Amino acid sequence: MKVSPDLANGTGGALADPPSLVSAQDHSGPLHHGGRLRAAASHYGLALDQWLDLSTGINPNGWPVPPVPASAWARLPEDEDGLEQAARAYYGASHLLPVAGSQAAIQALPRLRPPARVGVLSPGYAEHAAAWRVAGHAVRALTAGKVDQAVSTSDVLILIHPNNPTGAHFPLERLLAWHDQLAARGGWLVIDEAFMDTTPDQSLCILATHPGLIVLRSLGKFFGLAGARLGFVFAQPNLLARLEWLLGPWTVNAPARWVAQAALKDSDWQQRERPRLVAAGERLGALLLRQGLAPQGGCALFQWVRTPQARDLHQALARQGILTRLFEDPASLRLGLPGTEVDWARLEAALARVVEEVKP
Amino acid sequence: MKVSPDLANGTGGALADPPSLVSAQDHSGPLHHGGRLRAAASHYGLALDQWLDLSTGINPNGWPVPPVPASAWARLPEDEDGLEQAARAYYGASHLLPVAGSQAAIQALPRLRPPARVGVLSPGYAEHAAAWRVAGHAVRALTAGKVDQAVSTSDVLILIHPNNPTGAHFPLERLLAWHDQLAARGGWLVIDEAFMDTTPDQSLCILATHPGLIVLRSLGKFFGLAGARLGFVFAQPNLLARLEWLLGPWTVNAPARWVAQAALKDSDWQQRERPRLVAAGERLGALLLRQGLAPQGGCALFQWVRTPQARDLHQALARQGILTRLFEDPASLRLGLPGTEVDWARLEAALARVVEEVKP
Repeated sequence: MKVSPDLANGTGGALADPPSLVSAQDHSGPLHHGGRLRAAASHYGLALDQWLDLSTGINPNGWPVPPVPASAWARLPEDEDGLEQAARAYYGASHLLPVAGSQAAIQALPRLRPPARVGVLSPGYAEHAAAWRVAGHAVRALTAGKVDQAVSTSDVLILIHPNNPTGAHFPLERLLAWHDQLAARGGWLVIDEAFMDTTPDQSLCILATHPGLIVLRSLGKFFGLAGARLGFVFAQPNLLARLEWLLGPWTVNAPARWVAQAALKDSDWQQRERPRLVAAGERLGALLLRQGLAPQGGCALFQWVRTPQARDLHQALARQGILTRLFEDPASLRLGLPGTEVDWARLEAALARVVEEVKP
Repeated sequence: MKVSPDLANGTGGALADPPSLVSAQDHSGPLHHGGRLRAAASHYGLALDQWLDLSTGINPNGWPVPPVPASAWARLPEDEDGLEQAARAYYGASHLLPVAGSQAAIQALPRLRPPARVGVLSPGYAEHAAAWRVAGHAVRALTAGKVDQAVSTSDVLILIHPNNPTGAHFPLERLLAWHDQLAARGGWLVIDEAFMDTTPDQSLCILATHPGLIVLRSLGKFFGLAGARLGFVFAQPNLLARLEWLLGPWTVNAPARWVAQAALKDSDWQQRERPRLVAAGERLGALLLRQGLAPQGGCALFQWVRTPQARDLHQALARQGILTRLFEDPASLRLGLPGTEVDWARLEAALARVVEEVKP
């Protein structure tokens, strides 16, 4: 598989090569993600509505979306329609940019710096490393324990916090010390806080007016609005302006802006949902432990099970119509939350069967 | 205003400059577009709901959107959920890629070629020229009459067809001849067919499997779904794959995919709407003619009035709460369709007043 010199040297102006480029770096195929239920349904020959999809960390009982006004579909989206204001209140931060999901920011940020030495938490959400590599940066994968010693030789450090899929998190003082080191030489600390909403006191988005601190948030996970493609970037106004220019006009669709605005304002729902999700995360951990699959980590929205039987378990559960997210390196499974009592019971019963089945 | 060397020479890997870059090429400020009703409301001190917004070419009576299923908000969007199939049937073309509005393709296409000589129809939708310039291409503005002689010295030709705002269109044989010339040397003919839906027999999207022919369509105008941010690119599968890779995953939000699929399948609505819009476009032309503002061009969804009084007319209409789209070069106004009989009467009455007011 050939890598275009334009990409390999980081100029990236003209992309003349096949679309398999991301995968050339990390994987043997395109990057895999949870939520690909259609592909699973087809592969395992089970109808879509027969599946229990635990392959994502999306809240299965997300914010209840009311009917969207017709004008939101008809009119071009406009800035400052109330969304930015609602987001400033929810996140407690003044400078932010709505983007079409964190993914839009993940792809664009590497284009805002000349080639740099980039450390990325690993295992972790793989799109970060892929996007920085494609833009010509020198990317190093860092386990959580190696981050500290790598900061002094990095220009950019990317953390997923809490980490997906391991659930790893870092003390606030540590994050601030890393940021200080990086910012002192014009570096960036990028923190992807996609799973931060149940622990808002650990978020750094209110500090992201400091040079070199960039925080990503998303409405996909806690609010269960993954289909809406809406996230926010928190950073210095100058960097947000460059990012906005690079992304171009109307990147977030207008119904998503309307729905997100309402969800961000619904503090009653948010306050009920936080403890409910934390309890559900603990319940999932306990369930897995009962089946001999003690999670190595996780957060309110998912649990992470590291086991050499990960592939066998994944396939055996899929044959029962339960989709999980398989990771190869290290061999592990991520399981999201069941949404109903029936789903909880179905997961526990299926696990009891498949754990027997895959015993080495 | 400084243009980053990285951009000026087309490498475009790291964008180190302020976000005012697009405007540095063509304009003294950011590119202006219709539909910016909030800005107008604030500037003219008139409440949002008091305006008649004719500043876009969006169908004011768009496809009636039914309630969207909750699952569309909750789940990540998935390819081949039925949208691609519905689009293949509607457009009569086999190879297409859904994108987050034509704008997403307009910004990405220039990144798929090394620096080239690019001719762009002018006046015309200004984002094309801006996007190719930013990516480092040498862009020439071409009036409709100059296109033919420019083809032999262009690598890429970009037409808006029918043109926005002039309504200019080209015979099929001419388009095919230009495409032949360009394709013979590896060039591209890019046709933005955002306003083509009322004249589907003039579309080239069914021919876009030919190398070097790229056609853009959108659900924003005819279907009146501008808020959804959904369009399609028609091109050779290899080029579509490169574009898809460059844009990344989940670029179109899931509710938009669901709505678009249903709209594309609603052939009863489409068949009623085409003649209705054509008649409305003619009615708008006749109304303008009665007020001494004979349109120089247009299509079913807008009319274009070229007049030295364009700015005065625009401002006088805005003071009456009617927003039009002003163009500076050449001085002209574009007016979209009123949606109700009340709006038609309001436009005619306001025009009668302001035409007297701005008489030189």
